[in-house]
Amino acid sequence: MKLIKNAAGRLVPFVVNGQRQIPFKGVNKYKPDGVKAKPKISSCKDYPEDGNKVVRNLKEALKKAGIKNGMTISTHHHLRDGDALTNYLFDIVHELGIKNIRWFPSASFPVHEHLIKYLEDGTIHHIEGSMNGPLGRFTSEGKMKGVGVLRSHGGRYQAVQDGEAHIDIAVIAAPTADSFGNANGVTGKSASGLIGFALVDSEYAGKVIVVTDNLVPFPCVPWQIQGNNVDYVVQVDSLGDSTKIVSGTTEVTKSPDRLLIAEYVAQFIDEAGIMKNGFSFQAGSGGTNLAFVLYLKERMKAKGIKARFVRGGSTKYLVQLLEEGLTDYILDGQTFDLEGVRSMRENPNHVNTSPFISYNFHGKGNFASMVDVAVLGATEVDVKFNANVVSHSDGYLLHGIGGWQNCLYSKCSILAIPSFRDRIPVIIDEVTTLCGPGELVDVVVTERGIAINPLRKDLIKSMAKSSLPIKSIKEISDEVYSICGKPTKPKYDLSKVVAIVKWVDGTVLDSVFKLKSK
Amino acid sequence: MKLIKNAAGRLVPFVVNGQRQIPFKGVNKYKPDGVKAKPKISSCKDYPEDGNKVVRNLKEALKKAGIKNGMTISTHHHLRDGDALTNYLFDIVHELGIKNIRWFPSASFPVHEHLIKYLEDGTIHHIEGSMNGPLGRFTSEGKMKGVGVLRSHGGRYQAVQDGEAHIDIAVIAAPTADSFGNANGVTGKSASGLIGFALVDSEYAGKVIVVTDNLVPFPCVPWQIQGNNVDYVVQVDSLGDSTKIVSGTTEVTKSPDRLLIAEYVAQFIDEAGIMKNGFSFQAGSGGTNLAFVLYLKERMKAKGIKARFVRGGSTKYLVQLLEEGLTDYILDGQTFDLEGVRSMRENPNHVNTSPFISYNFHGKGNFASMVDVAVLGATEVDVKFNANVVSHSDGYLLHGIGGWQNCLYSKCSILAIPSFRDRIPVIIDEVTTLCGPGELVDVVVTERGIAINPLRKDLIKSMAKSSLPIKSIKEISDEVYSICGKPTKPKYDLSKVVAIVKWVDGTVLDSVFKLKSK
Repeated sequence: MKLIKNAAGRLVPFVVNGQRQIPFKGVNKYKPDGVKAKPKISSCKDYPEDGNKVVRNLKEALKKAGIKNGMTISTHHHLRDGDALTNYLFDIVHELGIKNIRWFPSASFPVHEHLIKYLEDGTIHHIEGSMNGPLGRFTSEGKMKGVGVLRSHGGRYQAVQDGEAHIDIAVIAAPTADSFGNANGVTGKSASGLIGFALVDSEYAGKVIVVTDNLVPFPCVPWQIQGNNVDYVVQVDSLGDSTKIVSGTTEVTKSPDRLLIAEYVAQFIDEAGIMKNGFSFQAGSGGTNLAFVLYLKERMKAKGIKARFVRGGSTKYLVQLLEEGLTDYILDGQTFDLEGVRSMRENPNHVNTSPFISYNFHGKGNFASMVDVAVLGATEVDVKFNANVVSHSDGYLLHGIGGWQNCLYSKCSILAIPSFRDRIPVIIDEVTTLCGPGELVDVVVTERGIAINPLRKDLIKSMAKSSLPIKSIKEISDEVYSICGKPTKPKYDLSKVVAIVKWVDGTVLDSVFKLKSK
Repeated sequence: MKLIKNAAGRLVPFVVNGQRQIPFKGVNKYKPDGVKAKPKISSCKDYPEDGNKVVRNLKEALKKAGIKNGMTISTHHHLRDGDALTNYLFDIVHELGIKNIRWFPSASFPVHEHLIKYLEDGTIHHIEGSMNGPLGRFTSEGKMKGVGVLRSHGGRYQAVQDGEAHIDIAVIAAPTADSFGNANGVTGKSASGLIGFALVDSEYAGKVIVVTDNLVPFPCVPWQIQGNNVDYVVQVDSLGDSTKIVSGTTEVTKSPDRLLIAEYVAQFIDEAGIMKNGFSFQAGSGGTNLAFVLYLKERMKAKGIKARFVRGGSTKYLVQLLEEGLTDYILDGQTFDLEGVRSMRENPNHVNTSPFISYNFHGKGNFASMVDVAVLGATEVDVKFNANVVSHSDGYLLHGIGGWQNCLYSKCSILAIPSFRDRIPVIIDEVTTLCGPGELVDVVVTERGIAINPLRKDLIKSMAKSSLPIKSIKEISDEVYSICGKPTKPKYDLSKVVAIVKWVDGTVLDSVFKLKSK
């Protein structure tokens, strides 16, 4: 596999799974000059006049959709670790004897470990989408036939919109739907909030199958997915377990160190003058970030400050802000708990968004760059502020990108992270995998000190008189190394790229290499 | 101009305004085999990171959008006869010395008589969109430089989606918007309801300008138009007069004949078994149709029947149905009075739709065909049930198609019309202009009798024992001619097509010819 060094100095392949790639050219340097994907024109004459698109079962729908070897099939992660549909889907694909599928999920979760056998037997050729946990480990060990492609939520929209990735068959798990294919995620026993990750699939896929465990008479209102884009509707007993949309990462941390980090973040935002009437923020789903919301809330209440909007992943903490009048709106990309689902269903000011609205970099702007401050996590940050969210320092690919890359475009991006984990340094010389170029990371907050990117002279000035422990990132890194020592680097097989990390504009930012067996 | 006879036996041109056309091939006979229009890929790097797209004024926005001779500029009729923006827009276009614009409105109204001078001086080359009143008269007299193109609301979506008509610059009047371009029609002093007619423009136009007289801080919620599709935002003092969305056609008739027709229609729907729990209907905006809603309501109440949904053009009468619990939903395509606007703003079960959802024939189904019964008007119907809505028997083009063609796809389409108007027969031998093929017209209800299309044996059977005056359409026509006599046909210049009527699939259904001066 031929590799070249891209503008970030990382080795990336020219061709991935037979498809020509564009190496990363620098932040805001690549300019697309093409046209969007061109879906075929449909005609109502080929669809039932009474609008009833229900077919007997998923197997029937896949056959009608013309499933065959080598196709791309997409699924979505609205039910997160509670998703039962995807495993069922691939049981059927396997039963049909179909091979070499490109699986194009919006994310995968540990529950999808079930699919490893289909990656092994050639049913699935490779995964384009995040590979959390077991599937990432499988990939890191070089066992996947094709090369994984990791994209942000916005990058997934961009890739499909731009025609980089054509979905042949989209399978959309819909907590509520009607027989025409109108669907939403806010009602029904599997209600998991919005289903906006499937929007681009519904717009551009060749065939669109809506699968629901709550079929209601037309019209299904609200319609987050529009039936006019849907080919078939399938009824099943259960899509999965919606209580599992609450993963471990959506509970407030109890660790004293992480609570300290959260407090630092809130203080930073306050002292930097970001927290003012009409401001906006986004907090990721990690336990530290949730604690930050609680600390910031106290400061907002103390100063009588109200936000114009907050961005979710929504949790009960954001819902409380809305219900207590501390923000006008939640602009939500993904509900992380059932309180979020309830609020979205009941409150018109808890607005569902899609990756198109929030994150697509190949639109006429997006919401991400308009957010005053985004508080995010990372697995590693290096002394150039480059950050990693997909792999650990042992070289294993274990997480997806989510909206993380997209959120770096906020007016102030803060990584709230411990300086080391399990005696493995987090602030290091060079990231294992580059997911976010340092120039977009504004502040790194650790329990050991806060580093402001030297590019952000404005923030450095605002914080000149702060009591917070502002340090250079090198100082923090040195301290960490002095405590933990420098761990040995993992050994890679540099001839074998197992996955690539795309930037928000579709260019290739970095490669993940096969780990050499120990 | 070379004409050929299409499948409906009407003479239509091959080439219109330099563009090759497909003659009508029969209902559900034409199968598109191409791909959708291919908008250019944008990049956030070319848009302000803070999301603020406000430019000084409309002239500035048009210049930034690269306005030049021969471009297509679109506008929308949400403010109907109260629209002030379009006239202002073309004053600027004229001032800039731009020529040969294809004006692509979703509809035009008498208020746009102001534009005749620009049609005369070459600023506007021709109109594609309905030409109500003065502009239609101007066109019929052969004074427009190009050939008018009349499309239904669904046909307008289809034409842009399919790439038949590319809009260079869309100018969207938005009663409320934010600086990013998110916009809605339900709030603000010019609130006129939804702004869904502009959806396709926002999706496919080269440049999109949102003009508002109510700029609110981001986010403008709800966003019926998404800022991610918008290039520039312009603030003006006033978009127009929203009280004028109530035109003469949205008041209940006082004519005893027309009240009788309305009563017949309600009785027909009841006796044919269409009016049952969970049914649906759509009523056009004519005074007869509004009266029908009142009569049907009485019957629904008497029998304890509730509709699942009703389709607007919403008026206070439909709002009353919703608020009195006689329907679960209003699925609204266009608000026809301020009560409709209020209801849409306040009631989540008063749902806004777009021509994509409701009417686009080149989607995977649409709502129109799922409606149990649609009650519509017509200027003429002939003995083959062919119907006309755009011209009068004197040959003048005076109305647009609206959603009329699209609604013919409902499970039962009823034309509720007087048998003659001002001693001019309405039920005649052959329509002046063919807008709806007879096979899609199920029932014609006049004060003189009710004709059921012989193709609808089911309806004939259901109504066998009815006390209603069921007659053949020929009987009604004969009666009318015996009263009014046969008026002399208008004289046309058959060498000069002044406008064409498109069918819902983009093919050419009929031509409108220049009237010979008397």
